[in-house]
Amino acid sequence: MQAGFAMLCAGCIRAKNVKNIMLQNILDICAGSIGFYTVGYGFAYGGADHIGSTFIGNSYFGLRDFNAWSSFFFQFAFAATCATIVAGTVAERCKMSAYLCYSIFLTGFVYPVVAHSVWSSNGFLSAFNNDGYFRDVGCIDFAGSGVVHMTGGLTALIAAVILGPRKGRFYDEDGNPLETPVTFQPHSVALQVLGTLILWFGWYGFNSGSALAIANEDSAAVASLSAVTTTLAGASACVSALFTDSILESMVTGETSYDLTMAMNGGLGGLVAVTAGTACVTPWAAIIIGIVGGWVYIAWSKLLVALKVDDSVDGIPVHLGNGMWGLIAAGLFAKPELMDLAGYNSANPGLFYSEGGFDGHLLLVQICCIFWIIGWVSCVTTPFFMLLNAAGMFRVDPLEEEVGLDISSHRGSAYDMSGPRKEDVDELMEVRASKHGKIDANKEVKAVENANA
Amino acid sequence: MQAGFAMLCAGCIRAKNVKNIMLQNILDICAGSIGFYTVGYGFAYGGADHIGSTFIGNSYFGLRDFNAWSSFFFQFAFAATCATIVAGTVAERCKMSAYLCYSIFLTGFVYPVVAHSVWSSNGFLSAFNNDGYFRDVGCIDFAGSGVVHMTGGLTALIAAVILGPRKGRFYDEDGNPLETPVTFQPHSVALQVLGTLILWFGWYGFNSGSALAIANEDSAAVASLSAVTTTLAGASACVSALFTDSILESMVTGETSYDLTMAMNGGLGGLVAVTAGTACVTPWAAIIIGIVGGWVYIAWSKLLVALKVDDSVDGIPVHLGNGMWGLIAAGLFAKPELMDLAGYNSANPGLFYSEGGFDGHLLLVQICCIFWIIGWVSCVTTPFFMLLNAAGMFRVDPLEEEVGLDISSHRGSAYDMSGPRKEDVDELMEVRASKHGKIDANKEVKAVENANA
Amino acid sequence: MQAGFAMLCAGCIRAKNVKNIMLQNILDICAGSIGFYTVGYGFAYGGADHIGSTFIGNSYFGLRDFNAWSSFFFQFAFAATCATIVAGTVAERCKMSAYLCYSIFLTGFVYPVVAHSVWSSNGFLSAFNNDGYFRDVGCIDFAGSGVVHMTGGLTALIAAVILGPRKGRFYDEDGNPLETPVTFQPHSVALQVLGTLILWFGWYGFNSGSALAIANEDSAAVASLSAVTTTLAGASACVSALFTDSILESMVTGETSYDLTMAMNGGLGGLVAVTAGTACVTPWAAIIIGIVGGWVYIAWSKLLVALKVDDSVDGIPVHLGNGMWGLIAAGLFAKPELMDLAGYNSANPGLFYSEGGFDGHLLLVQICCIFWIIGWVSCVTTPFFMLLNAAGMFRVDPLEEEVGLDISSHRGSAYDMSGPRKEDVDELMEVRASKHGKIDANKEVKAVENANA
Repeated sequence: MQAGFAMLCAGCIRAKNVKNIMLQNILDICAGSIGFYTVGYGFAYGGADHIGSTFIGNSYFGLRDFNAWSSFFFQFAFAATCATIVAGTVAERCKMSAYLCYSIFLTGFVYPVVAHSVWSSNGFLSAFNNDGYFRDVGCIDFAGSGVVHMTGGLTALIAAVILGPRKGRFYDEDGNPLETPVTFQPHSVALQVLGTLILWFGWYGFNSGSALAIANEDSAAVASLSAVTTTLAGASACVSALFTDSILESMVTGETSYDLTMAMNGGLGGLVAVTAGTACVTPWAAIIIGIVGGWVYIAWSKLLVALKVDDSVDGIPVHLGNGMWGLIAAGLFAKPELMDLAGYNSANPGLFYSEGGFDGHLLLVQICCIFWIIGWVSCVTTPFFMLLNAAGMFRVDPLEEEVGLDISSHRGSAYDMSGPRKEDVDELMEVRASKHGKIDANKEVKAVENANA
Repeated sequence: MQAGFAMLCAGCIRAKNVKNIMLQNILDICAGSIGFYTVGYGFAYGGADHIGSTFIGNSYFGLRDFNAWSSFFFQFAFAATCATIVAGTVAERCKMSAYLCYSIFLTGFVYPVVAHSVWSSNGFLSAFNNDGYFRDVGCIDFAGSGVVHMTGGLTALIAAVILGPRKGRFYDEDGNPLETPVTFQPHSVALQVLGTLILWFGWYGFNSGSALAIANEDSAAVASLSAVTTTLAGASACVSALFTDSILESMVTGETSYDLTMAMNGGLGGLVAVTAGTACVTPWAAIIIGIVGGWVYIAWSKLLVALKVDDSVDGIPVHLGNGMWGLIAAGLFAKPELMDLAGYNSANPGLFYSEGGFDGHLLLVQICCIFWIIGWVSCVTTPFFMLLNAAGMFRVDPLEEEVGLDISSHRGSAYDMSGPRKEDVDELMEVRASKHGKIDANKEVKAVENANA
Repeated sequence: MQAGFAMLCAGCIRAKNVKNIMLQNILDICAGSIGFYTVGYGFAYGGADHIGSTFIGNSYFGLRDFNAWSSFFFQFAFAATCATIVAGTVAERCKMSAYLCYSIFLTGFVYPVVAHSVWSSNGFLSAFNNDGYFRDVGCIDFAGSGVVHMTGGLTALIAAVILGPRKGRFYDEDGNPLETPVTFQPHSVALQVLGTLILWFGWYGFNSGSALAIANEDSAAVASLSAVTTTLAGASACVSALFTDSILESMVTGETSYDLTMAMNGGLGGLVAVTAGTACVTPWAAIIIGIVGGWVYIAWSKLLVALKVDDSVDGIPVHLGNGMWGLIAAGLFAKPELMDLAGYNSANPGLFYSEGGFDGHLLLVQICCIFWIIGWVSCVTTPFFMLLNAAGMFRVDPLEEEVGLDISSHRGSAYDMSGPRKEDVDELMEVRASKHGKIDANKEVKAVENANA
C-alpha cells in the first residue's frame, strides 16, 4: 500500500518536490511502525479482558506479554495508511519535522483511540462489545471507511486549512485572490496510474484480509464476496466520476474530453466507500455505493476549491468525503444474511433491509460514529497543528517552496534525464562507420537526437 | 495484471498518448467487471446442471442465486485480461467510445462463449464434460492460452486490420508505401520493463491459481509445478527471442546489439505458450515450449510488419501467435501422470507420450479448439468492428492523431518535467551563501542545471 | 523481487544505461532459472539421504526423480536474488557476455555450495545436520543474510575491484585521482523508490515465506513474528541511516538536508541485517539490529569511496556489510523460546540469552560462517573474474562507456519524451477555436508548452 501511496502522491505533484514526498511516504512506514509498536497498538487493543467499555487500551505497550503478531502486523498496516493519507494533501509546502511529529502523534494516539472505539471488544461503538452504550447495535466499519479513511482524511483537512494553500494556487504574489485558481499539473500521470492500481490491488488485502481475520468457517466466502463488492464499487465509481465530469466539462467547453484523474480518484473514492460494508452488502448495492461515491468525490473536490482549501492530491474528497458516505451506506445496505456470515449481529440490519419498513437503528449508530470521529479528531489535531504552526515548525520558507523542496532540502532534483555528449556519440558513429560502412548509423543518430530532445 | 498491462502499453507507445492508453486500461477493469457481472459470467458458466453440451450458459445473470464469489472473481480477472490485450494493439488511434463498446461486447459475450465451450462442464470441447462431442477427450487449456490469449489476440488482429496503421508507420503523408516502415520508439522502456515484470509475477497468480482452483488434494503440488514450468518457459523464450534477434540483426548490421523489447515480448510469448499445458508438462518440455515460443514471437512479429498490420505494442505475436502454439504444445507434451494430478482424463495424452507411438487424439482436439476460436471470434467481431468503423466511431480524427490523444481529448500532456525558475534557485543560493560561505552552492547549482537540462 | 531490483538499479544509474541494466535484470531470472535448474539445485540440496556432512549435493540434476516443486521454486528465487545483487554494482561498464557467464556460474555453482553448507541437512554448518562438524550448534541464517546477501555482496565487491571504477568517478581523463570523487546523480529517484518499496514488500515473501516453509504447527506464528521483526528492523535502519547522515552532512555544510538515498539504502540494509535471525529475535532486538544496520551501511559506503571502489548502486554496503552484521546479530540476539518455535536447537542461544552469562558457542559458529563464505566466494570468484578480464570479456570499450550502453549496444535511448509538433497543435487549436470560440485554447496550449519544455 505504501508503494501505491508513494507513487500516486509523487505522480500528482510537481517535479520539484518528488524526493520530498517520497521520503515522507517512506518515513511513514518507519514512524508508523515505531509509534504503533511502542504505544499505538496498546492504546487500540490493550485491556480486552476488561468488562464493559473503555476509552482507550492500557496494555501491550511495546508488545509486552504479547504474541498475536499477525494481528499487530495487520493493524499496523491500517495505522500507517491512516498517516499516509495526510502526507499527500500537505505535500509541496510542509516541513519534514512537522511530518515526523504528526505521523507519530497520529499512529501513536489519535488513530488508536478511534480504532479502540469501533474495533476493540471494549469500544463503546464496537459491534463486538456486548456491553456497549448501544447494547446490541454496533457500528459496522468492516475494513475502515471511518476508522482509517475518515480519520486520515479529516486530519488532512485540518492540516490543509491551518497550513494554507501552495503559493500561486488561489492567490497572486501580492495575496489577492486569483479569478480562476491555478491547477498545478501532475508531473507524471504514469506514476499516478501506477500508484492507483497498486492501491487498488492492495485494497483486496485490506478488505478481503479483514474477512480472513475473522477466522470462522465462513471467512473464505466472506473474503471472496468482499473482493467482488470491492471490485464492483471501485469500477462503478470510476465510471461514474469520469463521465459525470466529462458531461459537466463539455457543457462549459463544448468539447468532449476525459479526465484520467477523475477516473482514478473517483475509483479510489468508490473503494473507500465500500470499505465499511464490503462484507455485508450485495454486489448490486456495491454498484450503487460506487456510483454515488463517484459523485461524492466530485462534489467534495469542487467544494474544497470553492473554499480555497488546497489539497495537493485531492485526498480529502477521496478519504473524508467517501469515508463518511461509506459509513452511511453500510447503514443503508447491510443485509442480514451477510451480516451473520461476517460475524455481526443481524438483529439491526441496514435501513433498506429492516423488518417492517424503516428501522434506522443501525443507520443512527453509523451517524453517531461519524460525529464521534469528527469530534475526536478535530479536538485533538486542531490544537496540535496550530501549535506546530505557531512554533514555525509547520510550513517551509516561501523561497524554498518556490525553488522546490528537492533542491532546497534533499540535495538536488529527483530526475536527471541528460543523455551522453553529442561529440562522443558522433565519435562512436564514425568508428563504426569506418568499420563496416554507413549501415545503421542513421538509426543510432536518430536515437541520440531523441535522447537529447 | 491490469497494472502490468497499463505500464507495459504506456511504456511502448509515444509520450503523447500515455494518458489515453492508461485510461483505457483502467476502463477495462470497469467495463469488464460490469459486462462480466451482468451477463458474461452467466453466459460462461450458467446452467451447469444441464446434462450434455450447450452453446452458452443461461443462468447467474447479475449473479442471481449465486454465491461462488471466488470463482466469479477469478474468472473476471481472465475476462478483463482478454479485453486488455486488444487495448495495446489499437493504441494511439482508437476512439474512447469504440473502446468502451468492444470491452463490454468482448467480456459480456464473445469471451464467455469461448470460456463456456472449453471450461464449463457443459462445453462441447470441455475436458470436464462427460457427454461432449469428443467424448473422453477434452481440450487441455489449463489457464487460457486459447480461451484468454488467442481470443484477445485474434480480436486485436481483426481490430488492427480494420482500423488501419498509425499515420506515418507504413505510408507517407500522400498514402504511398514507405520503403522501410518507421518504428515508433517506446517513450519509456522503464515503464515497459516494469509492466512486463508485473505481468510475469501476475502470471503465477493465473497459472498456479488455476491449479489451486481445482481444489483436490494434489492442488498444492500442481500449483508448484505450474510455477516452475511457467518460470522455465518464460525464461527460455526470453533468451531464445533475444539471441535469435541479435544474431539476425548482426547479420545485417555487422554490429552485436541486444534488443530489450525482444527479450520482454519473447518472454511474455513463452508465458502465453506454457499457459495451456502448465500443469501437465515436465520442466524439460516447458523449456522446449519456451524456446519455440521465442521463435514464434519473432516470426509473427516480422509477418505483421510484412503485411503492413500495425500493432502498437506487438501484442498479436505474443497472444495470438503463442496462444496457438500453446494449445498445440499441450497436445504434444501433456504427460499422463501429470494430467491425472491436474484432474484431466489421462487416457489421451500428448502425442509424444501416447502409447504405441503416435496417437494424435488430444492433438486433434487441440487443433479443433484453435479452429473453433478462430471461427467464432472472427465471425462475431469482424462485423462488429466494421459496423463501428462505418459509423465513424472507431478511428480518431487525423489531426487529433497527429497531435496525440492526451492533448486533444485528455486535457494536456501526461508529463510535466519542468523544474523551478532559475532566478528563484539563484536567489536561494545567494541567501545560503551569505549565511555560511560558499560551501555547497556548486553542488546545488549543478543539481538545478540537471533539472533544467 | 526482480521487479524491485530492476527498478532500483535502473533508477540509481544514469539515463544512458537504463536499457542495459534492465536487460541484465531480466536475464538474471533467465540465467538463474537455467543454471539453478540444470545443476544448481542438485549441488545445493541433492543427496540428502547421505549421513553426515558433504561438501556439495550430488542428485536432482535437471530435477530428475524430483517432485518438491515448491521447494525448488522458492530456492530458485533466492539464487536469482543472489545473482542480481551483483548486477547493480557493476552497472554502466560491464559487458553483456560477462554478465551471462557470471550469472550462470553464480547460480549454478558458487551459491549452491554456500546454500548446501548452511541450509542442506548435509551441510557442515547446518543447523539441521545432526552429524555436522559443530555437532549440536548449527549456524542460524533463517532467510539468508549470509547465504544470499553476503555471497552476492562479496561477489559484487570482487567484481567491482577487478572491473575498476566508472570513467570520471575517481580519476580524470588522464588517470590522475580527483580531489573529490564525482557522484553520478541517479536519473530517476521515482524508480529508485518504487524499486525499494517493491523489494521491501518482497522481503516479507522471503522472511515470512521461510517460516511457512518449515511447515510445523507453529509456522504461522513464526511467519507473523518474522513480518514484525522485518518491518521494525527496516524502519529503524531507515531512520538511523537518514538522520545520522543528515547530522554528519550538516556538520560540514551548516545546512540541514535529508538524503532519500540514505533512507532507502539504510532501510534495505536493516532488512538484510534482520534476515538471518528474523524468526529468532524479539521486536526490541530487531530495532537494535536495524539501528546498527543503518550505521553499518553508512560506514561501509564511506569506506568504499575512500578505497576508490566504485559501486554504481551502493549494493556492497547493503548486502555484504549488513549480511555480516546480520549473522553476528543472530549470534547475539537469538532467543531460546523463539529458536524452539522456528525449529532450531535452543541449547546454544545468542550471547545475550546464554545461560550463566556469556556463552559464545552460537556466535562463534556465526563467525565461522562469515569466514567460510568469505573464503569460498573469494577463492572461486576472484580467478573467475580475473580470467574474464584477461580475456577482454569483462569491461566495455571506453568510448562505448562514455556514450552509454543503450545507444552503443541496445539500439537507442531508453526514453523518448518528445511531444507533438507545435504546428500540429496550433492547427488543432485553431480548428477548435473556429468551432466554438476561444474557450479552453489557452489551457491546452499551456499543456503543450509543458510537454515541449
